Amino acid sequence: MYIYELDFKVRDYECDLQGIVNNSVYQNYLEHTRHEFLLERNVSFSELHSQGIDAVVARIEMAFKVPLRSRDEFVCKLGVKKEGVKYIFNQAIYRKPDNKLCFTAKVTTVVMVDGKMTADFAPFDEIVG
Amino acid sequence: MYIYELDFKVRDYECDLQGIVNNSVYQNYLEHTRHEFLLERNVSFSELHSQGIDAVVARIEMAFKVPLRSRDEFVCKLGVKKEGVKYIFNQAIYRKPDNKLCFTAKVTTVVMVDGKMTADFAPFDEIVG
Amino acid sequence: MYIYELDFKVRDYECDLQGIVNNSVYQNYLEHTRHEFLLERNVSFSELHSQGIDAVVARIEMAFKVPLRSRDEFVCKLGVKKEGVKYIFNQAIYRKPDNKLCFTAKVTTVVMVDGKMTADFAPFDEIVG
Amino acid sequence: MYIYELDFKVRDYECDLQGIVNNSVYQNYLEHTRHEFLLERNVSFSELHSQGIDAVVARIEMAFKVPLRSRDEFVCKLGVKKEGVKYIFNQAIYRKPDNKLCFTAKVTTVVMVDGKMTADFAPFDEIVG
Repeated sequence: MYIYELDFKVRDYECDLQGIVNNSVYQNYLEHTRHEFLLERNVSFSELHSQGIDAVVARIEMAFKVPLRSRDEFVCKLGVKKEGVKYIFNQAIYRKPDNKLCFTAKVTTVVMVDGKMTADFAPFDEIVG
Repeated sequence: MYIYELDFKVRDYECDLQGIVNNSVYQNYLEHTRHEFLLERNVSFSELHSQGIDAVVARIEMAFKVPLRSRDEFVCKLGVKKEGVKYIFNQAIYRKPDNKLCFTAKVTTVVMVDGKMTADFAPFDEIVG
Repeated sequence: MYIYELDFKVRDYECDLQGIVNNSVYQNYLEHTRHEFLLERNVSFSELHSQGIDAVVARIEMAFKVPLRSRDEFVCKLGVKKEGVKYIFNQAIYRKPDNKLCFTAKVTTVVMVDGKMTADFAPFDEIVG
Repeated sequence: MYIYELDFKVRDYECDLQGIVNNSVYQNYLEHTRHEFLLERNVSFSELHSQGIDAVVARIEMAFKVPLRSRDEFVCKLGVKKEGVKYIFNQAIYRKPDNKLCFTAKVTTVVMVDGKMTADFAPFDEIVG
């Protein structure tokens, strides 16, 4: 199911006054993993934007299972599939070294070209395969 | 359904290279609204934490409908209900002055006392009432 | 010396695991205050950017005197002067209600038009007066 | 002069509407580099905090020379010396692969034990050597 993974280490500034990674930071991890995945497939989020093409998040569902803490190392895994006009990314975070599942997310995106939703975006369709 | 609302204005540093508010920042808006709501009911998130009591987010579902942009003013609305051990916050963002619905979220939280989940947390139960 | 001020309240997500506002967040407060000041003078940072004009920070000097904490309310004050090609903002943060000086900063900016530094940018020169 | 360095890659969410890394994010890079440096010397910022010991930033001076952009890879270098009660970190960011100097900073820190400034903190003094 997962076709890409990226290693991370928690940075102290990402932790909040509860001493754990703030919930909003998980979205940063998710986004960075998606963009690195796309880059590896020669699709650049920032270059697409400068061409008037924007991959836009329509929905996110997240489940927080085990909090990440200062100094934790973890891997963010990613799978992707197409449903109609939607590209759906399934992502999960596993803590190292115990491989504990800490977090899962389903991120639904659509592609906008000059502000209009596009059903078939070739560079993404190639990736989804 | 909504029992509290808080006014915001987009800050430029919250916008990303697409020129719109980054998706992760919406979670900041959600959290700040919940904490201000609790404070108004004399419940302080940071004081609870220092007493070993943590309100923890278990799940978030978000729908991004219309992007917020530089200088947008908006209101974040909040409702809350109890389901078993879960306190569920329904939140929505409406842009001003056109009252456009931009974003909705369902945030499921649980209360941990000294690391153990608690079914009945009186200060929250009074609020949900 | 100060010609503008903006009210803020600390948001919990801005605090780090030391329980105080993370140092980097003060730069967010500084930037938002400068941009709101400019907006009040009918200069929009984001509109300038879309016209190829960018106010760019060249140097920042900051002194952290008293840490801001969860729920603190404060005011960020601003003065500005011109020195050669540089627009220099002096900014300070005072905690409310005790008017304690918490933070000072000197922010040196220059104006770039299509990537070239500009000595005289009329909209800014009017503001500096 | 530099005794430690850490590799980074710009993450898209760190870029603002000007399409470059937001100024405040450089402080995140600086802090993470200092904390990783300390960890390598077996000093944990988060563990110190839980023992009532806090390394606190008193002053930061930063010079922004060349902006970092989406996908840039860079190295953050660090040197440290002691002056009286102050531990002073000199830090610089060089872009890869052209080794362009993008950013320099001088970060002045002091050590607080149970809220009181401490002139000699053995774990830091060993590091400064």
